[in-house]
Amino acid sequence: RLPLALIAGPCQMESREHALEMASALKEIAGRLGIGLVYKTSFDKANRTSLNAQRGMGLAAAMPVFAEIKERLGLPTLTDVHDAEQCAPVAEVVDILQIPAFLCRQTDLLIAAARTGRVVNVKKGQFLAPWDMKNVAAKLIGAGNPNVMLTERGASFGYNTLVSDMRALPIMAETGAPVIFDATHSVQQPGGQGTSSGGDRRMVPVLARAAVAVGVAGVFIETHQDPDRAPSDGPNMVRLDEMEALLAELIAFDRLAKQRPAAA
Amino acid sequence: RLPLALIAGPCQMESREHALEMASALKEIAGRLGIGLVYKTSFDKANRTSLNAQRGMGLAAAMPVFAEIKERLGLPTLTDVHDAEQCAPVAEVVDILQIPAFLCRQTDLLIAAARTGRVVNVKKGQFLAPWDMKNVAAKLIGAGNPNVMLTERGASFGYNTLVSDMRALPIMAETGAPVIFDATHSVQQPGGQGTSSGGDRRMVPVLARAAVAVGVAGVFIETHQDPDRAPSDGPNMVRLDEMEALLAELIAFDRLAKQRPAAA
Amino acid sequence: RLPLALIAGPCQMESREHALEMASALKEIAGRLGIGLVYKTSFDKANRTSLNAQRGMGLAAAMPVFAEIKERLGLPTLTDVHDAEQCAPVAEVVDILQIPAFLCRQTDLLIAAARTGRVVNVKKGQFLAPWDMKNVAAKLIGAGNPNVMLTERGASFGYNTLVSDMRALPIMAETGAPVIFDATHSVQQPGGQGTSSGGDRRMVPVLARAAVAVGVAGVFIETHQDPDRAPSDGPNMVRLDEMEALLAELIAFDRLAKQRPAAA
Amino acid sequence: RLPLALIAGPCQMESREHALEMASALKEIAGRLGIGLVYKTSFDKANRTSLNAQRGMGLAAAMPVFAEIKERLGLPTLTDVHDAEQCAPVAEVVDILQIPAFLCRQTDLLIAAARTGRVVNVKKGQFLAPWDMKNVAAKLIGAGNPNVMLTERGASFGYNTLVSDMRALPIMAETGAPVIFDATHSVQQPGGQGTSSGGDRRMVPVLARAAVAVGVAGVFIETHQDPDRAPSDGPNMVRLDEMEALLAELIAFDRLAKQRPAAA
Repeated sequence: RLPLALIAGPCQMESREHALEMASALKEIAGRLGIGLVYKTSFDKANRTSLNAQRGMGLAAAMPVFAEIKERLGLPTLTDVHDAEQCAPVAEVVDILQIPAFLCRQTDLLIAAARTGRVVNVKKGQFLAPWDMKNVAAKLIGAGNPNVMLTERGASFGYNTLVSDMRALPIMAETGAPVIFDATHSVQQPGGQGTSSGGDRRMVPVLARAAVAVGVAGVFIETHQDPDRAPSDGPNMVRLDEMEALLAELIAFDRLAKQRPAAA
Repeated sequence: RLPLALIAGPCQMESREHALEMASALKEIAGRLGIGLVYKTSFDKANRTSLNAQRGMGLAAAMPVFAEIKERLGLPTLTDVHDAEQCAPVAEVVDILQIPAFLCRQTDLLIAAARTGRVVNVKKGQFLAPWDMKNVAAKLIGAGNPNVMLTERGASFGYNTLVSDMRALPIMAETGAPVIFDATHSVQQPGGQGTSSGGDRRMVPVLARAAVAVGVAGVFIETHQDPDRAPSDGPNMVRLDEMEALLAELIAFDRLAKQRPAAA
Repeated sequence: RLPLALIAGPCQMESREHALEMASALKEIAGRLGIGLVYKTSFDKANRTSLNAQRGMGLAAAMPVFAEIKERLGLPTLTDVHDAEQCAPVAEVVDILQIPAFLCRQTDLLIAAARTGRVVNVKKGQFLAPWDMKNVAAKLIGAGNPNVMLTERGASFGYNTLVSDMRALPIMAETGAPVIFDATHSVQQPGGQGTSSGGDRRMVPVLARAAVAVGVAGVFIETHQDPDRAPSDGPNMVRLDEMEALLAELIAFDRLAKQRPAAA
Repeated sequence: RLPLALIAGPCQMESREHALEMASALKEIAGRLGIGLVYKTSFDKANRTSLNAQRGMGLAAAMPVFAEIKERLGLPTLTDVHDAEQCAPVAEVVDILQIPAFLCRQTDLLIAAARTGRVVNVKKGQFLAPWDMKNVAAKLIGAGNPNVMLTERGASFGYNTLVSDMRALPIMAETGAPVIFDATHSVQQPGGQGTSSGGDRRMVPVLARAAVAVGVAGVFIETHQDPDRAPSDGPNMVRLDEMEALLAELIAFDRLAKQRPAAA
């Protein structure tokens, strides 16, 4: 059982400068805490609630920035892919390809991602039972890539609400894949603001603590220096200046949790 | 308020012969009942539970069959598209492009479908509130295509279960788009058979009646001459030889329903 | 299959005069429509959201009014009981004892109600699957009383929301008991107004139509001449002056529905 | 912030001997761990799925045993009450009166419990949002008793399933009342075995850890020396010989959790 890893960064890549600043700041925090860091950011928000919402820099403009983050800061990176064609070019630069929750059963996308040989992180659909993720993992492994990660990010609970079932963590771990808890999207209120999704960032530490105590390979936390002005997922991103304290806590819980697994 | 329309056909296109047989049989039934028919079938099941499950004939092989159905039988057709690239070639032959529920928020797919000028039928995601479909419709209309249909196919209700909220029908109708009730996938038990989805076809007439009584533009019902041997969605498809009686009932409910709308 | 029956009245008995007026008005409507009527009203609202909310006249004051309604208007009556001790005195006057949804598994209350020999109408708990109501019916029958009715009134769906699963109606009918659809509480938003429950009466005709089309023995609809000033359940009660048109519609759907059952 | 307390015991009081043995064994464990213990057991299971299921010893036979546990072992006790009349006699002997989840909105029961002056522990209904428990607490306080505890025991999630929303813990804590996490009933599968409720005791440590990490005043864990032969709730009770290890872990998480609260 390896110590807790961190997947973090702003929801979307806003500019080269912003990306490098955020990555540097997170690298310093991770260094001080001795926690492994993967830098996460999206080049395209492909399923915004509204057509007018900002989608991000796009693949072509983003790839050199990912390369620069990797080269200059030595950080592994993660980003999401939305169709099969994106997988190969993204995989040239980015270390972990992430399959968005809505797309977690799209066979072609899973296979294309698997065939790059990169680690593939699949977010569990809001509509999927945790035991059904073994079928998703099997698609990736069946396509020749055993480097699978599975991420919990909440299950549909009535309308405009998600709930985090902590039992999902050990159930998904039975696949043998590392399990990540996404504390950012788990507190999302999908469509909850009429033309955009809402969220409640005060619940990020609550759910993150719970998940780490149960036992996870890593946590996924989106962060921003000024979330209320971020172009997407602002209501559920953690302020950058609150990350270190939150992570320090989670590391302490992780140490305790990994002394013995919670589930028999 | 136009009379009830029917979208029907087998879950997947199994072969040219099977497709023509099914389309002919449905055309005869629709003719006897005087109900408008759109022939539905899928060329690719892009999100099967298991990698080993049969996916269908594929786009290239299916398009000539759709063309033949249209030409020889004079039937309009509907099929689902799974990525932006498929939209233009499918739109050359097929009359209605359908956006699968999992993909109902994928902006690029919606825009590509809209730009073909064809009617676009979007299935409401299992994870979406009915009032949030106005944002989906707005994406299509914003891309220049007002020919939008919205389809209810159940909402996530715990694990491996869907529930049909009949209130969704008038709520989605407030967009002005015709609303379809998919009686086949609403009785699906997603992932409910371990490596494939289950369902309960006995509940198709129950939910279809309820929806038609509330008031819908059309019903979507998958059918097969031998559902238990169908390559997908067998547990929730209606036997072809039971379709006529079911439809006759629904038509009677529709006539009554359209004398006065249910919601104020 | 008997024609649709109606259980109707104001949520709570507000005064002798109000009860007699409402009962007379409903009797006239039912007479014109030729529908069987049971007059429903509560003598005590035993589980209001807030301690300060108005609870009703109480058992002692209400029983003579129920007797008067029966004697002068010849109407059978229904009211809810909340503990075992209330069953015998209520049963001396009232024809149908109703078990509230929250209390549908309280064995002592069920047995005490059953032992009165009166018809017992049990509302399905918001937390119960429809197939589990057979155990509830079995408690009543096991206590020697086969005169059981079962009522659907919505299932918990996330927080502060109910959803009506129309599949519950034929599933509960498998017990052999008459099944009632409560169109009033199914549109309740429990606790949805902070210190009281909300609701959306516009959805009463939507859900009532759906249920009647599926096939039910009766509908339960609370009504008031001025719902917005009613002491409880105002947001989901139907205006008295809209009842006749609504019922006329439901009777037409019922006739059609009972020509053939929806479920195999 | 006081250290974690424990409410534990077998689901029902089976006999005087069994109760004393279990209480002694738990007292020893609690003593070795230095954790405060309240002995919990039920004298009556008032809402069993089936009429034939064993209900317990009854109030009259149980009260002397509670008195003996208190006197001989010096342990405070907790038991549930099901109607207003039981409150006073139970309060003569038992320290904490517990309101079952289904009954959490029954005003008369809450008031009668409050008026005894004893601490009242209310389980949150499976149908209730956590923010609505403030209304429940207000009923007790309004009846003159500020000694309120609130317990999370899962929310309805589809049929026959509960889900534990860890956000409920800090939300209920905003009332100022101590919040307890019931790790036993949270893993219940209500009605899940046809004529009795199922459960998955392997998930007790998973959910208990999560809740303690978030921060609770206490945990509620039912235990039995041989759960598979217990007359009720066997599938979700923890084996007595596994309690000490589980509690030791939870105490370690509690110490960490109470260094700083999770929610801002």
